[in-house]
Amino acid sequence: MNVLQPMYGYYLEDLSVGMTAVFGKTVTEADIMAFAGVSGDTNPIHLHADFAKASRFGERIAHGMLSASFISTVVGTRLPGPGSIYVSQSLNFKAPVKIGDTVTARCEIIEIVPERKRIKLKTECLCGDKVVLDGEAVILVPTRPKSV
Amino acid sequence: MNVLQPMYGYYLEDLSVGMTAVFGKTVTEADIMAFAGVSGDTNPIHLHADFAKASRFGERIAHGMLSASFISTVVGTRLPGPGSIYVSQSLNFKAPVKIGDTVTARCEIIEIVPERKRIKLKTECLCGDKVVLDGEAVILVPTRPKSV
Amino acid sequence: MNVLQPMYGYYLEDLSVGMTAVFGKTVTEADIMAFAGVSGDTNPIHLHADFAKASRFGERIAHGMLSASFISTVVGTRLPGPGSIYVSQSLNFKAPVKIGDTVTARCEIIEIVPERKRIKLKTECLCGDKVVLDGEAVILVPTRPKSV
Amino acid sequence: MNVLQPMYGYYLEDLSVGMTAVFGKTVTEADIMAFAGVSGDTNPIHLHADFAKASRFGERIAHGMLSASFISTVVGTRLPGPGSIYVSQSLNFKAPVKIGDTVTARCEIIEIVPERKRIKLKTECLCGDKVVLDGEAVILVPTRPKSV
Repeated sequence: MNVLQPMYGYYLEDLSVGMTAVFGKTVTEADIMAFAGVSGDTNPIHLHADFAKASRFGERIAHGMLSASFISTVVGTRLPGPGSIYVSQSLNFKAPVKIGDTVTARCEIIEIVPERKRIKLKTECLCGDKVVLDGEAVILVPTRPKSV
Repeated sequence: MNVLQPMYGYYLEDLSVGMTAVFGKTVTEADIMAFAGVSGDTNPIHLHADFAKASRFGERIAHGMLSASFISTVVGTRLPGPGSIYVSQSLNFKAPVKIGDTVTARCEIIEIVPERKRIKLKTECLCGDKVVLDGEAVILVPTRPKSV
Repeated sequence: MNVLQPMYGYYLEDLSVGMTAVFGKTVTEADIMAFAGVSGDTNPIHLHADFAKASRFGERIAHGMLSASFISTVVGTRLPGPGSIYVSQSLNFKAPVKIGDTVTARCEIIEIVPERKRIKLKTECLCGDKVVLDGEAVILVPTRPKSV
Repeated sequence: MNVLQPMYGYYLEDLSVGMTAVFGKTVTEADIMAFAGVSGDTNPIHLHADFAKASRFGERIAHGMLSASFISTVVGTRLPGPGSIYVSQSLNFKAPVKIGDTVTARCEIIEIVPERKRIKLKTECLCGDKVVLDGEAVILVPTRPKSV
């Protein structure tokens, strides 16, 4: 028995249009500090309360790429999960995420192209009912190993 | 004197097609752990050396969104810098980034649309000469305040 | 084309007395924990709310060296930026920084010594209008490469 | 009994010229990433292996303020320890610290000024026998509470 097998996600044959998965978390001040640290993105709109207060947003906002990374989390851990390959992602930033907001990333299969072993996902991040980020992802998905 | 003024980036009037800026860093194991923590993306291809060794990549790879976040760093801190608004970003993942690889994100202005106060950037991440990620960004840039 | 060229900061010839740059951030509880971790400075005045409450400060305060590191950020990333060498820094700690305070480090060129390729900066950290840290820095700055 | 009492450091009356204490650690890549994150100092000499290789140092170096923070650790946790107040610190950066180097910060009391409740420390950071950072610190030290 291969101990790693349960780590894999869906095979292409297991997927169908309309399947959906989500991941999300409440964005804390500590998340923003950590994301600034790992990315190097020290834009004061994320880190400097005085600067942010004087901005159009009125307070510090999270990095858009932090929300985008939650989409990657859905793709890489849930739908289709480990073993799949991220081909592309489009991101439209629609609204800011503020400290304390809870972001839910949602991915839904909207197309399957079996001959290219690819699927297309509608991807969006929501705060409550509000879409803060949307776009599409293309993912390369492994096919089920043939038994002999 | 307003200490915050020097925190702002370029105004739209200061920009021209061809302007370029970069940011990059060597991707360490610690970066991958930190990115997994803040994003929740615990895909074993990033975190589990045994799983990764058995994969097509042969070893752990960095999150694609980590490289993408370096593009955000250029946009948010250098070109055009603080005060600009991220409208959209497309991401094509071309090749994996492994532990110890040095990634340089590079943004170049390819179009300026003054009536919409927007610019378009060619965005790419390089490891040496190899493009590991490319795409385009659209950014809303503030105009110079009018003096009275 | 050398992608690294844009990573460099100012050359000595580009600098003049009076040039100023800033960096800052809001100091969060997470920053203090992170700074304690990397520095090993586990002084209870930074980490232990009960100890801090009984102290003259009445609450936990940030490490003075965290504010000092923001000065290093200005020097190493903005004025004069990458390629310069930190020679010395004096630090006078004037007032505590508490959780939630926004610190802005400000550096201003007060002297240029071309024959030694050095500049002197007035360096200070502000919370609003209050100086919490001041001192001076000496920096060795590269000169513009001669064309042949 | 006050549970916090054991958290305090030396009283002024307990100190004498020549007393010495140290703190240090091996500087890892993860320390440098963490310090960049908390400080915002993303200078490529610390983070970007290609940039650093082309520099005078030939490889990535640690932030000078990281070594400086080890001095703060000695002051704040050992000599004189919690309860003391950091008044000032001078820092002369003498040599780079590279990944894997072990830094030992050493503080020695060189003067005591009882009427001002202050002590002066000689402070230095060593890698082996090599001084990488030196300077002096002035510390305000509490006096022993009078018994009634």
